[in-house]
Amino acid sequence: MARFLKKRTEELGKAPGSLVFVGEKKIEKTQIEVIQFNSEQIEVHKDPTMADLENFKSSSDISWIRVSGIHDTEVVRKIGEVFDLHILLLEDISNTDQRPKYEEFDHHLFLVLKILGERTETQEVISEQFSLVVGKEYLITFQEAHTDVFKGVRDRLLRPTTKIRHRKSDYLAYALMDAIADRYILIIERFGEQVESLEQALIANANSSHLAKLYEYKREINFLRKTIRPVRELVIGYKNSESDLIADPTISYIKDLEDHIVHATEAVETYQVMLNEQLNLYQSITNNRLNDILRVLTIFSVVFIPLTFLAGIYGMNFKYLPELNYRYAYPMFWVTLILIAALMMGYFKRKKWL
Amino acid sequence: MARFLKKRTEELGKAPGSLVFVGEKKIEKTQIEVIQFNSEQIEVHKDPTMADLENFKSSSDISWIRVSGIHDTEVVRKIGEVFDLHILLLEDISNTDQRPKYEEFDHHLFLVLKILGERTETQEVISEQFSLVVGKEYLITFQEAHTDVFKGVRDRLLRPTTKIRHRKSDYLAYALMDAIADRYILIIERFGEQVESLEQALIANANSSHLAKLYEYKREINFLRKTIRPVRELVIGYKNSESDLIADPTISYIKDLEDHIVHATEAVETYQVMLNEQLNLYQSITNNRLNDILRVLTIFSVVFIPLTFLAGIYGMNFKYLPELNYRYAYPMFWVTLILIAALMMGYFKRKKWL
Amino acid sequence: MARFLKKRTEELGKAPGSLVFVGEKKIEKTQIEVIQFNSEQIEVHKDPTMADLENFKSSSDISWIRVSGIHDTEVVRKIGEVFDLHILLLEDISNTDQRPKYEEFDHHLFLVLKILGERTETQEVISEQFSLVVGKEYLITFQEAHTDVFKGVRDRLLRPTTKIRHRKSDYLAYALMDAIADRYILIIERFGEQVESLEQALIANANSSHLAKLYEYKREINFLRKTIRPVRELVIGYKNSESDLIADPTISYIKDLEDHIVHATEAVETYQVMLNEQLNLYQSITNNRLNDILRVLTIFSVVFIPLTFLAGIYGMNFKYLPELNYRYAYPMFWVTLILIAALMMGYFKRKKWL
Amino acid sequence: MARFLKKRTEELGKAPGSLVFVGEKKIEKTQIEVIQFNSEQIEVHKDPTMADLENFKSSSDISWIRVSGIHDTEVVRKIGEVFDLHILLLEDISNTDQRPKYEEFDHHLFLVLKILGERTETQEVISEQFSLVVGKEYLITFQEAHTDVFKGVRDRLLRPTTKIRHRKSDYLAYALMDAIADRYILIIERFGEQVESLEQALIANANSSHLAKLYEYKREINFLRKTIRPVRELVIGYKNSESDLIADPTISYIKDLEDHIVHATEAVETYQVMLNEQLNLYQSITNNRLNDILRVLTIFSVVFIPLTFLAGIYGMNFKYLPELNYRYAYPMFWVTLILIAALMMGYFKRKKWL
Amino acid sequence: MARFLKKRTEELGKAPGSLVFVGEKKIEKTQIEVIQFNSEQIEVHKDPTMADLENFKSSSDISWIRVSGIHDTEVVRKIGEVFDLHILLLEDISNTDQRPKYEEFDHHLFLVLKILGERTETQEVISEQFSLVVGKEYLITFQEAHTDVFKGVRDRLLRPTTKIRHRKSDYLAYALMDAIADRYILIIERFGEQVESLEQALIANANSSHLAKLYEYKREINFLRKTIRPVRELVIGYKNSESDLIADPTISYIKDLEDHIVHATEAVETYQVMLNEQLNLYQSITNNRLNDILRVLTIFSVVFIPLTFLAGIYGMNFKYLPELNYRYAYPMFWVTLILIAALMMGYFKRKKWL
Repeated sequence: MARFLKKRTEELGKAPGSLVFVGEKKIEKTQIEVIQFNSEQIEVHKDPTMADLENFKSSSDISWIRVSGIHDTEVVRKIGEVFDLHILLLEDISNTDQRPKYEEFDHHLFLVLKILGERTETQEVISEQFSLVVGKEYLITFQEAHTDVFKGVRDRLLRPTTKIRHRKSDYLAYALMDAIADRYILIIERFGEQVESLEQALIANANSSHLAKLYEYKREINFLRKTIRPVRELVIGYKNSESDLIADPTISYIKDLEDHIVHATEAVETYQVMLNEQLNLYQSITNNRLNDILRVLTIFSVVFIPLTFLAGIYGMNFKYLPELNYRYAYPMFWVTLILIAALMMGYFKRKKWL
Repeated sequence: MARFLKKRTEELGKAPGSLVFVGEKKIEKTQIEVIQFNSEQIEVHKDPTMADLENFKSSSDISWIRVSGIHDTEVVRKIGEVFDLHILLLEDISNTDQRPKYEEFDHHLFLVLKILGERTETQEVISEQFSLVVGKEYLITFQEAHTDVFKGVRDRLLRPTTKIRHRKSDYLAYALMDAIADRYILIIERFGEQVESLEQALIANANSSHLAKLYEYKREINFLRKTIRPVRELVIGYKNSESDLIADPTISYIKDLEDHIVHATEAVETYQVMLNEQLNLYQSITNNRLNDILRVLTIFSVVFIPLTFLAGIYGMNFKYLPELNYRYAYPMFWVTLILIAALMMGYFKRKKWL
Repeated sequence: MARFLKKRTEELGKAPGSLVFVGEKKIEKTQIEVIQFNSEQIEVHKDPTMADLENFKSSSDISWIRVSGIHDTEVVRKIGEVFDLHILLLEDISNTDQRPKYEEFDHHLFLVLKILGERTETQEVISEQFSLVVGKEYLITFQEAHTDVFKGVRDRLLRPTTKIRHRKSDYLAYALMDAIADRYILIIERFGEQVESLEQALIANANSSHLAKLYEYKREINFLRKTIRPVRELVIGYKNSESDLIADPTISYIKDLEDHIVHATEAVETYQVMLNEQLNLYQSITNNRLNDILRVLTIFSVVFIPLTFLAGIYGMNFKYLPELNYRYAYPMFWVTLILIAALMMGYFKRKKWL
Repeated sequence: MARFLKKRTEELGKAPGSLVFVGEKKIEKTQIEVIQFNSEQIEVHKDPTMADLENFKSSSDISWIRVSGIHDTEVVRKIGEVFDLHILLLEDISNTDQRPKYEEFDHHLFLVLKILGERTETQEVISEQFSLVVGKEYLITFQEAHTDVFKGVRDRLLRPTTKIRHRKSDYLAYALMDAIADRYILIIERFGEQVESLEQALIANANSSHLAKLYEYKREINFLRKTIRPVRELVIGYKNSESDLIADPTISYIKDLEDHIVHATEAVETYQVMLNEQLNLYQSITNNRLNDILRVLTIFSVVFIPLTFLAGIYGMNFKYLPELNYRYAYPMFWVTLILIAALMMGYFKRKKWL
Repeated sequence: MARFLKKRTEELGKAPGSLVFVGEKKIEKTQIEVIQFNSEQIEVHKDPTMADLENFKSSSDISWIRVSGIHDTEVVRKIGEVFDLHILLLEDISNTDQRPKYEEFDHHLFLVLKILGERTETQEVISEQFSLVVGKEYLITFQEAHTDVFKGVRDRLLRPTTKIRHRKSDYLAYALMDAIADRYILIIERFGEQVESLEQALIANANSSHLAKLYEYKREINFLRKTIRPVRELVIGYKNSESDLIADPTISYIKDLEDHIVHATEAVETYQVMLNEQLNLYQSITNNRLNDILRVLTIFSVVFIPLTFLAGIYGMNFKYLPELNYRYAYPMFWVTLILIAALMMGYFKRKKWL
């Protein structure tokens, strides 16, 4: 899982608004892909020049400018120049430790949130920062790597009948965030299955490997919560925006998105509660087991203590120890032992200690 | 009990507003029943055609269109077309994992909540999603199965003197939700009896079977809370609505409904607190019992330790061990033992360890 | 203590506003007493007819119509007819499981709260529902039994100089609620004394009977809190009412009443915190005691273990065991034992285990 | 420490506004001292008559009427008559169980709070109720005893250059409350030193006397919190008052006072958190110690168990027990013992149990 | 770490607004440095006279008057006179126990917060109070010592092209606070690394030295939280100020600063949660280990108890003990022992106690 606070030692002391990449480089080379479309036609451009970008900006078609790999701050800076983005906005894009937020500027809206993914080999949850700049005729997105979370949106975009083709950049931005939210729910669902199967295992036979897993899951759910929870605020900000960049019919879709995020947050919180309950359950079960063992075994030992003591007595070598010479001492000794044991067991039974 | 997050893997990646049924099919065939009434007469229609539905819509009589079984998304889609329902509203109806909510549209109001029931064989609490679309002259309800929770309302509807017959769809919607709330309270009441009898059992003789039950009840109460709590928001939304679909005299009935929901929520929370207290009580009792056992038994063993040691001493085979040959060594040995034991017991008594 | 949720199985399924008594019958026969007064004279009427009630309603004197015993829903219904009370208001009066609330109607105000009492034999706290309908010239009160909580008010009412005689029904309602709040504080005070004396007992010598008492008190304080806490909201509602039924000079008295309720609530919460602290204290004390016992006794046993082992060694019957034949083996054996014991004790002392 | 709820059994049942002293008599005789001053001159009067008070009221000089000892309700009632104070205000003054509050009346402002002190012999924290009535040209204060908390203010008052002499009763009231707040901080500081030195002691060597102290401190901090926390509300009320009794320049001083109260409250809460942490620390340390002891001692015993068993074997008296007669049986026996012990210790080491 | 409440015994009792230094003297001599600049030129003055300060105040260039060492209250008082600062403001500067706050005055703004540093030898976190007075053409800062946290700002100030040189005192104040916030994040980052490496160590092998560290870190994180958290309020106050001392373009920078502070606060809270989880983990691990040890060892002892008892039986010296004389008694005895042990082990295995 990602560390909670990314190393940004280098950045410190720089003037505010200096572009420094904070994070881990996740892709070799920064790629730019532009999808330009209107309801009739669609074109895909790879790695455009800055001049191309100027053209996209001034065109009346919708352009989705998709930047993958943000460690090359030079590219980010140049795009910022072309589209007239505030230096602090560019700083937020480059700092992959940014918390989800929504900000309005004069000519564009700015959103940052996290995409969740799973490392294929280890099923570990990983996160990637995703920033959107929503302009009138353009949408610029920045992400750390080139994940497949938007494949569905891209495929739909190619079909001329799809709703995205007939709307503006605000709806496209919504569609991308909806894809991200769907991914959240998918990840939570898989996580939830692990949590529930852990509960089954716990009830069947709690052991210390479950404890390790519980704490691992707790860390993971904390990470999910920190990632997903603030997205709601962002969506509410976007929904309530009075900017004319957001068309009225898009609003009900954003409301639906808000519902999904709330649903995801609640699911995360439900699993968090479940994990806490499981930890309690684990402790109750192991304590109970230990109590049972200690109780039974202690009673067992205690029954033998006076018996062994008596055997010790008649193992003594006193010259004048009259019982040793009685004819029926040995059988009577056994009778005494059994009597003592029976009395003690009876006492413990009556006290409900057994 | 229902899983917390329903599998919706298939739905993910679809365009927003694609109708996909999320959930478990609870009834074989989707049924539609329409009850059309005014203060004078009442008629029941089974499985009407779409053309019939058009008629019900335009009639000035009140129609209750009751759809049981929502897995057939085609039926839902068609009804949506006839009554001009938004695609996202239909999506909410089909997704049985929807959290309770209230939404206003131009020509109708939309409410989703859960009906609670009990599986007859196992007394397990089960839930079913219930959606209402309140229009001017019609009320459409969608539910997963055909449960009997509305039997009382339906019976009253057949009597011409009943209030429902003289009011509009807003009052009918209220009456249905009131029946659902009554069911909530019934379920909580039965649950509460189990919780209270568990407490009696715990105090009488706490054992580990109670622990398992406690955790089971905690899971169940969490489920009840998640189901009932958000209904309050929904009712408040409905109460404060400025839509002219809700007549003034209905408002005080909705307020009364709100009271019932608040009452149910508080009862759920009271039982939740009681269960937590019972868990603490369980742990206190078992700890106390173990403490008592360990204390008494440890003291018992400790008293025997020096006695056994002394017996061991005089069981040694040293050639020159003078005590062995004394005439009254054996009785004196016993006197010593009893003295030691008495002293130790006295010491423990004085220390209040016994 | 009262059960948290009263059985209302019968009521369920009835049409909303059907008058059904929910609760336990606490008095044999419903009684009605009317005290009619103005600043000059006062009259007491027993069990008036409905026609009498009509007269009281239209008189310009103040009438306190006091109904004791509400299980006779017919009486409640008839009074409702005379004074034009809403059917849902009557339902709230009859349902003794109603939570405290304040509601305004066009021609009267409605308040429900609980009276606390103590069962004389067992000192158990019991509660009784009390409803007030404050009209212009009349005050109707409904209670389950005929408790003595209003004796003071009734006595003052008989004296012509008292403030109540010169004010209207709003002040009389205040005076009754003030008597109820005084009773709350009295009950809490007695309860608090028990809690504080339990603390003394705990510190002196914690034992498991205290544990049982702690949990009993926790249940009782929960009940008190649930009863008293919501009364504040009610009083605030009454205070902020813009109804012309409440005269300006009465407001400062109601503020004072609010202070009393806040004071009572805080006292309840203080005792709740104290009980939780006492539970922690109990657990700390018993754990500490067990730890001390286990530590001392374990060390005691451990010191004897090698000694007993050595005695066992020289109790062996090997033919060739040279030490057995040494002249001073036995005294040297004792010296060794004492040395071992001393070394172990020293080690434990140094480790601060003793 | 003071009991949380003062006995007020007598007061109950009385008409609202009956003057009854609730509390403990802390001073023998009620004293009244009046300090009358303007910027030029100052006079001190002892035990004035009611006629004198009338004069002070009508004078244009500022009068500080200081009443020490409020158990004499007759005095309180008479002052109330002279200065036209509401009966409920007088009731609040006489009830020493009043929680801190601020109230505005037409011609004066009313404040109640607690003065903290320390019983000189026991260093126990004690509290005393202090009420202020701020009028245009006068300030009346009521306190239970005659403590020295206002000595500094009184001394400054005698110097003609001091700010108090040039301002009105609002500033004098501020100065008194500032002195009370300074006392709060002093008390908390002393308490804090005890808490911090307890922490040192705990870390050095936790024992059960610390546990008793911890719970005592927790009770004391609860008392401090209940006393100081509500004062903030009071100060905010005074600060935001729109009464013309408070001059503009006084406001920034009251803001400063608010800062002090917030500071005191935060310090109290910090120590509360520290005490909770210390309780956890105590439990962790004692548990750890017990765990260490039990672990080491149990292992020690366990090593001896098979050794003692073997010694027992060769102490048996079987006629045909061949090993007993071997020439080197005894030394081989010791070798075996040492081997077994070494193997067990090795095993425990490898398991990290030692 | 700093004590939570600084000794201010001396200050108590003084008139409000008396200048008394509260805290520890951290630097030998109070130094004043003035940096006067405009976009063209920059000058640095050391230890100016009061007359110089008057000049700086009236100049149209921006002056940063930097006072290091505030224990000399005389200097603070004189500066207050020159720049017309309220006496309570000066008191806040001199009291190093002041909590972070923002206040607006007519001609200047006032901010107090803490600078964090690390004692080089011990890596202990230390804090220093920093106050800013933002005037039209001047910025006065007061700090306890002369730390290097502003080195970066000072260096940038010397370069004519930097943004600071072209803006007013509001931006300079922002730049200084941004440097402080960067330092916060640096300190938290280093702290976080320690917390995370502690977690690794805990999971590898929990021992009691980790417990001590955990509690030390908890105290340190509490200190960080108390220091950093209230800064957000201060920044929000500064951001929302309607004073014309703050230029519009500065606002977005302050918003960015707010983001940093929120980020820092969340990081602190994340580490606080992590430390609590680690404490739980520590307890779970040590409990688990003790449980394992006790379980295994108890079972081990219990198996030997009947064996040793039997050996004791045949060590008895009864004259008539027939088994002693059987030919194969000894081998049969061993067979019996092994059988008993095997049966017990089997029983424990089946019970899942092993």
